[in-house]
Amino acid sequence: MASRTSFADLPCSVARTLDVLGDAWTLLVIRDAFLGRRRFSEFAESLPIARNVLADRLAALVEHGVIEKVRYSERPPRDEYRLTARGRELFGVIAALLAWGDRWLTPEGEPVPLDLVHLPCGHAMRAAVTCGECAGLLEARDVRVRANLGQPLPAAAAASAGPAVQPDAHA
Amino acid sequence: MASRTSFADLPCSVARTLDVLGDAWTLLVIRDAFLGRRRFSEFAESLPIARNVLADRLAALVEHGVIEKVRYSERPPRDEYRLTARGRELFGVIAALLAWGDRWLTPEGEPVPLDLVHLPCGHAMRAAVTCGECAGLLEARDVRVRANLGQPLPAAAAASAGPAVQPDAHA
Repeated sequence: MASRTSFADLPCSVARTLDVLGDAWTLLVIRDAFLGRRRFSEFAESLPIARNVLADRLAALVEHGVIEKVRYSERPPRDEYRLTARGRELFGVIAALLAWGDRWLTPEGEPVPLDLVHLPCGHAMRAAVTCGECAGLLEARDVRVRANLGQPLPAAAAASAGPAVQPDAHA
Repeated sequence: MASRTSFADLPCSVARTLDVLGDAWTLLVIRDAFLGRRRFSEFAESLPIARNVLADRLAALVEHGVIEKVRYSERPPRDEYRLTARGRELFGVIAALLAWGDRWLTPEGEPVPLDLVHLPCGHAMRAAVTCGECAGLLEARDVRVRANLGQPLPAAAAASAGPAVQPDAHA
């Protein structure tokens, strides 16, 4: 793979996150880890991906602290890959991607590929992204963005129907 | 760019979503659209990206119905790019990526780059991913996955600390 531009230095948590999760394979590796896969051979069997690319993505996830490599057998030496606390907190991102895909990309007349059952309430459910303060469903038009680092934000979008986050640089 | 493996045919909404959102540039274009950017020149100014790559990503987003191209001037002919309903619903994904990055990737002692203010409640807030049925915070260990298409899922992970989604193929 050619080296990729690093987004890590952009003063934006989305960009920083994408520097870690930067390509689709990486997110599919994480999805697989949430599905219980741990061994290199399990990931290799699940994903249509070259072994060197898989090894590269796993190594990057270990480097970023999303997955840890744990030796589970000494003779022969064998390692497995487990999500760290940081990695387990990506469940919300994966669940949000899945919910959007269920809603917009499921072929008409087909069931969604996977049901997620939330054990505490017992329901098959879809993830919702909500406000951490008031628990209301987050919609772009209800959110105003303030820059904390003096990063220029574009002038507020015209009031017509359109992108809805309201930039409001106060830095 | 070399052509990329298509994930669209994998029976998984995460994979289908990643086929649309497949690389970090695409997600940063969407982030910028939520920040109110609409014109090619605004995206080009915001993102350290070659113009042909930007044009390619915008065209793919139009093709997938995430963004629409709208002519706003006839003479000279000028178009702008606006999120569609489908695109606006990606706000949750972007907000979840941002929340994770705020939490895990903000350098120590630095403020988070952006504050999101939720206008209905008036608070600076972080997104939470919750159960669409009971509104409880989603955690991987509380979610069981059932395959609807007979797709094999790995045997349930061992009960030790680890990946927490519990596969439960019932197909």
